Amino acid sequence: MSIVQFSIVERTRKSPFYEATIAAGVQGFTVYNHMMMPTWYESGEADYYNIVNNVTMWDVAAERQVEITGPDAHKLVQLMTPRNLSKTKIGQCKYIPVTDQNGGLLNDPVLLKLAENHYWVSLADSDILLYAQGIALGMGLDVTVVEPDVSPLAIQGPNHAPVMAALFGEEINKVRFFRFVETELNGIPLVVARSGWSKQGGFELYLRDGSRGVELWNLVAEAGAPHGIKPATPNSIERIESGLLSYGNDMTRENNPFEIGLGSYCDLDQEADFYGKEALKRIKAEGIKQQLTGLVIEGERLPGNSSCWPVSDGGAPAGKVTSATWSPRLEKNIAFAMLPMSHQELGTKVTVHTPDGEVGATVHSIPFVS
Amino acid sequence: MSIVQFSIVERTRKSPFYEATIAAGVQGFTVYNHMMMPTWYESGEADYYNIVNNVTMWDVAAERQVEITGPDAHKLVQLMTPRNLSKTKIGQCKYIPVTDQNGGLLNDPVLLKLAENHYWVSLADSDILLYAQGIALGMGLDVTVVEPDVSPLAIQGPNHAPVMAALFGEEINKVRFFRFVETELNGIPLVVARSGWSKQGGFELYLRDGSRGVELWNLVAEAGAPHGIKPATPNSIERIESGLLSYGNDMTRENNPFEIGLGSYCDLDQEADFYGKEALKRIKAEGIKQQLTGLVIEGERLPGNSSCWPVSDGGAPAGKVTSATWSPRLEKNIAFAMLPMSHQELGTKVTVHTPDGEVGATVHSIPFVS
Repeated sequence: MSIVQFSIVERTRKSPFYEATIAAGVQGFTVYNHMMMPTWYESGEADYYNIVNNVTMWDVAAERQVEITGPDAHKLVQLMTPRNLSKTKIGQCKYIPVTDQNGGLLNDPVLLKLAENHYWVSLADSDILLYAQGIALGMGLDVTVVEPDVSPLAIQGPNHAPVMAALFGEEINKVRFFRFVETELNGIPLVVARSGWSKQGGFELYLRDGSRGVELWNLVAEAGAPHGIKPATPNSIERIESGLLSYGNDMTRENNPFEIGLGSYCDLDQEADFYGKEALKRIKAEGIKQQLTGLVIEGERLPGNSSCWPVSDGGAPAGKVTSATWSPRLEKNIAFAMLPMSHQELGTKVTVHTPDGEVGATVHSIPFVS
Repeated sequence: MSIVQFSIVERTRKSPFYEATIAAGVQGFTVYNHMMMPTWYESGEADYYNIVNNVTMWDVAAERQVEITGPDAHKLVQLMTPRNLSKTKIGQCKYIPVTDQNGGLLNDPVLLKLAENHYWVSLADSDILLYAQGIALGMGLDVTVVEPDVSPLAIQGPNHAPVMAALFGEEINKVRFFRFVETELNGIPLVVARSGWSKQGGFELYLRDGSRGVELWNLVAEAGAPHGIKPATPNSIERIESGLLSYGNDMTRENNPFEIGLGSYCDLDQEADFYGKEALKRIKAEGIKQQLTGLVIEGERLPGNSSCWPVSDGGAPAGKVTSATWSPRLEKNIAFAMLPMSHQELGTKVTVHTPDGEVGATVHSIPFVS
């Protein structure tokens, strides 16, 4: 990962937590769903240790929501994903790959069911708001599709429980994984879900009133202070070690769910219709030609990748590295790579072409740390 | 406009000209349609003088295209815009506001008609690719909607003609405004249009083979060298002086075309259907409540705005500044502002709340320089 200067304008939207993150010393940003999202505070590695060793708070407001309501809401949401949603309960989160008519991945959001025919689709980085709106208009569905005033703040790390208890009382820690409750804090309306983009445990607080972002941030910081909470962000070291994929990095519209290990989320035999059903049946029958796998890359510590790195075997192209990082816990370079089916076996040797030269690598299982 | 550090990853896509722009000394970037787009080289003001005084070359690959082909292509394109496209000719560009069912602006792209039922929609910053795909799926239209391998390189500035002649021969300078030709340069396939996001004159070269981006950049740089061509970017000083609006800055989905002076592009009486027709008829009948106008802001040189600045009159809210810059030619602070209809008259006085304090301002016509 390299770093450049970035020009801030109105178009690069600001999170409701933006001023608070500046005050907390944020140093780097990316743009995600047309919004600035923090990428590091102290350093990528210092933030990582705070996440895996204790507890951290993240501005992930850029995980924008698509709110879908109205009599046809369930139908529209189901049309967008191969996942079978027929048994989704109110108060439940579900990871839903979104596919187009060819089975290509358009996003990999988390769905929240707030009520019958009332959903939030908590997005990775693509305008599913406009895709859902387009389908609804084209079909004449009786739905309302909007981006509501909802902005997640994540509390992540093994020591999250006392912070959550200090904020909401002990009961909150009984909420199960991928379940949520509607609540409030000092009158600030929230949805609180046991979820988040790390494998270190924690919650996401979906702020439902953007005017109170800094107030919420400060409440969490104060409650977390006795427990050593630090500001952090979605962290590429932690997520690669843990096997968490990133839309736009590890998968794009060029990929189908089977290629990136999401086959178990595809119910091709369900009664309900969804875009990509026929294409995914065909892909499954024919078998995939490539798959995302892990790689351990030899040699000295490499920088993270700013673009995909080509992979070869005996001089012939053999896929690409999609995400790479130095793992402080393993003291190795680790990566995700999209490799042909001929190169999936654990222990297979390949060559990775980094900007600094060629280096050997070995196929490894995902996750790297569990 | 302030500046922060930005983390580059695969997800922040690279233009086919990326390596060439790095070699040419690009210093700043933004993200536009999920792609890194250069924002300055020497400095915003030095680049500006190169644009208005001579000739410049810009990496605007982030103006991604939506290619729509197939028997229903014309129908789909017309559904997305209030502009009447019934007389659009092959080889013609048209500026087409894209509206949703409420008349809200989703984008303000330039349409290129390459053949009957073969269009490119050259985008501002929002995923119209997914919107168009959604409508097509929902309606079951017989179209193909893709993002083709097409990346514009702009040549802008009053001295563009000799550079164009050196590249393509004298004939190219006979191409009229908003017309294009399909051609090639050293075998590199191109669409060459007289267009571009400045009022200084010039062309856009739509590269149709991304693998040859650096080659095209270098050919233009070599042909332009005797004429003093410099690398530059879409420039906020030039575009505000010239009255060019920026989607996401000066307009969003919260705005209808009438509010930002695009009423002349809305044919509400045309036979063809489009999304927003009924809503825009109602808005037109009721009259708009606010409108984008120019402001001259008093006092010393202000920095450009990173977010909208509130506007007030006698202590009461009276709209917001959407884009502001110091104008070197006028030696004044100039801006676009969304103001209530009560504050549209030229010469009206208001107060602008900048991050550095309150300052007086006066309503002014757009453009500031013509």
